[in-house]
Amino acid sequence: MTQSRPMLDFYFDFISPFGYLASLEVDGVATRHGWECRWNSMLVGVSVLKVMGMKALPEIPLKGAYLQREIARHCRRHGISLGRSTSAAPVNPVPAGRAFHWIAKNYTAELKPFARAILDAYWLEGKDISQISLLVEHFVRLIGDGPAFAAALTGGEGDVLLRKAVANSLDRGVFGSPFFLAAGEPFFGLDKMGQIDEWLGCGGW
Amino acid sequence: MTQSRPMLDFYFDFISPFGYLASLEVDGVATRHGWECRWNSMLVGVSVLKVMGMKALPEIPLKGAYLQREIARHCRRHGISLGRSTSAAPVNPVPAGRAFHWIAKNYTAELKPFARAILDAYWLEGKDISQISLLVEHFVRLIGDGPAFAAALTGGEGDVLLRKAVANSLDRGVFGSPFFLAAGEPFFGLDKMGQIDEWLGCGGW
Repeated sequence: MTQSRPMLDFYFDFISPFGYLASLEVDGVATRHGWECRWNSMLVGVSVLKVMGMKALPEIPLKGAYLQREIARHCRRHGISLGRSTSAAPVNPVPAGRAFHWIAKNYTAELKPFARAILDAYWLEGKDISQISLLVEHFVRLIGDGPAFAAALTGGEGDVLLRKAVANSLDRGVFGSPFFLAAGEPFFGLDKMGQIDEWLGCGGW
Repeated sequence: MTQSRPMLDFYFDFISPFGYLASLEVDGVATRHGWECRWNSMLVGVSVLKVMGMKALPEIPLKGAYLQREIARHCRRHGISLGRSTSAAPVNPVPAGRAFHWIAKNYTAELKPFARAILDAYWLEGKDISQISLLVEHFVRLIGDGPAFAAALTGGEGDVLLRKAVANSLDRGVFGSPFFLAAGEPFFGLDKMGQIDEWLGCGGW
C-alpha cells in the first residue's frame, strides 16, 4: 500500500526572475519534507497586467529600481551569475508556455528537465527563448523527435493548452511568479521559501 | 571612546498591517546584532497611490484577498490577535503621522513608546487613531502636558514636519510599509526580516 505524498504546486513565468530563482530551490524544500513538487507555468502578463490592472514591475517608480537591487543581492548570496540584465525588456513568454503545457500533457516525466533547460537558457545563457527553433532544439535533445512538438507550438494545440492552464491558475488565485500552493495553502513570492519550508515541515498552523 | 552603532532605519505607515507586524520584531533583530534601530513613519497613500500609480493593496484583484489570508496566517503563527479587520477601510493616517514627527523632533526618547501605543491602539484595540483626542490622550499619559502637541497636529507645524519626512523617505527610495535601510541597504516587506537578520549578523554580502 502506497500513501500519496502531499502536493506542493509551484507556479512560475519563464520571464520572471523571481520565478527562476525560486525554481532553483523549490524541489529541495519539497523533497526534504516528503512532499511532491509539481511545476506549473503561468503568465504574469495576464494576471498582473490584465486581471490585476497593474504595471509591469520594472516600470513601477521606486519599486522597479529596488527589485533590480534585490535580485542582484539574492544572486550574490547564492552564487548565481545571471546571463541577462533584469532591466532588459523580457522576450515573449508564450512559446515557452505552450511548449511547457504540451510536454506536461504528453511527456510528464520529462517536464522538469525541459523547463529547467529553458529557464537556464534564458537566465544563465541569455538566449531568446521565444524562438521556436531553440525550444525544438531542447526538445529533441531531451525528449526525442520534434515535429509534433513544433506543430503544437505554431498550431492551435499549444495555444489551447496554455490558455486553459493560465485560466486554471487564475481560478486557483495565482497572481504572481513565483506562487506556491501547499496542499491548497497559497504563498506568494521568493521570500516565502523559508515560511514554506516551515509549513511543510510541521504540516501548517 | 565610544563607537557609534550602525543604523537600521525602519519605515512604516500606521495603517499598514505589515508595518505593524514588522514593528513587533524589528528592534529585537537590530539589538541582537548590536545595531541601533530608528523608527520613521511614512505614508503609503503618497508613495503607492501617487508616486507609484498603483491601487491600494486591498483593492487589487486576487492579491487583495491573498494578503488578508497572509496576515491571518502570520498572526496565528505569532499568537497575535488583531482588533480590527484587515479588510475594513483604513482611517486617515495623517494625524498620527504628524504626531509622530512632532514627537521625533521634540521628545526623541519618547518616540518609540508613543508610536507603539498608537499602533497597538489601532491594531489591537481597534481604535480610531485619526482622532486628535486619542493622540493627545496617549501623549499626556506617556509624555506630559498636551497643548503644544495638540496645536502642532491641528496647526501647520505637524503638517510641515510630516510632508518633509515623507519627501525624505521617497528621496531614500522608500516606497512601501514596512521598509528597511540597513546602513543604506534597502529591504522591502515583512518577509525580509529573516534576510535582514542575516545581513546585520554578517555585515552584508
